[in-house]
Amino acid sequence: MLLMCFLIVSGCGNTVTGQQDITAIKTLLLQQQKAWNNGDIEGYMQGYVQSDTLRFASGGTVRRGWTATLNGYKRGYPDKTSMGTLQFSNIQVTLFSETYAAVFGSWQLDRKHDRPSGLFTLLLCKTAGTWRIWADHTSSAKE
Amino acid sequence: MLLMCFLIVSGCGNTVTGQQDITAIKTLLLQQQKAWNNGDIEGYMQGYVQSDTLRFASGGTVRRGWTATLNGYKRGYPDKTSMGTLQFSNIQVTLFSETYAAVFGSWQLDRKHDRPSGLFTLLLCKTAGTWRIWADHTSSAKE
Repeated sequence: MLLMCFLIVSGCGNTVTGQQDITAIKTLLLQQQKAWNNGDIEGYMQGYVQSDTLRFASGGTVRRGWTATLNGYKRGYPDKTSMGTLQFSNIQVTLFSETYAAVFGSWQLDRKHDRPSGLFTLLLCKTAGTWRIWADHTSSAKE
Repeated sequence: MLLMCFLIVSGCGNTVTGQQDITAIKTLLLQQQKAWNNGDIEGYMQGYVQSDTLRFASGGTVRRGWTATLNGYKRGYPDKTSMGTLQFSNIQVTLFSETYAAVFGSWQLDRKHDRPSGLFTLLLCKTAGTWRIWADHTSSAKE
């Protein structure tokens, strides 16, 4: 994964290669996945900055703020059946500095009647020693 | 716009506020918009890092490399009618460092028979004194 990060930004240089931070960010995503698969949307939302500044972009819509994002998830996924089983894959972390990072990845939901999937681009910041997502851009593959 | 940038990242701190870089990045986007509206996809593509490391994510698909991205645009927009008139709006620039930045924005195409629109998240780097996009995540509003 470090090699991938290097390749991605090799045209730009000056990124940071901090294995500890990359591991912390990957752990955060695994915790989100685990919470989701336990039907725990509030737990999943712990990966995001608990702030009105949180930006969640999907399709053509931008939600702003942690509470609005939580409520959007609750409306879209009212029960465990609609939540299905979430799997993240193709995770690529790039550190811009000691406090800013980006993550690219793929998501997939295995549900009883469908299997929606797509991509995400996350921007994270480290605040009080902890990495949190402050911007999320998610898109869906056409069914 | 500077105020917006400050508000967006106020939970994280330590971003850079370089008006010259923000202006350069906005100018780059305006140049892209102008090239597109002249039917000049190659000109539009000058906004991207000319490298195999370029990452272009849309829907559920990732394209890698400048040439693959150019060819994808050419296939999707084979003539000036299909390209329509592009307008970017709601541009928000965040500088992570002297060499890395993110841009959030909205896009819209005015065409004869439809008006597709959506959002983008761009990651840029400054290389040899010039800002270029090295990662683009674009999504479409549901029609």
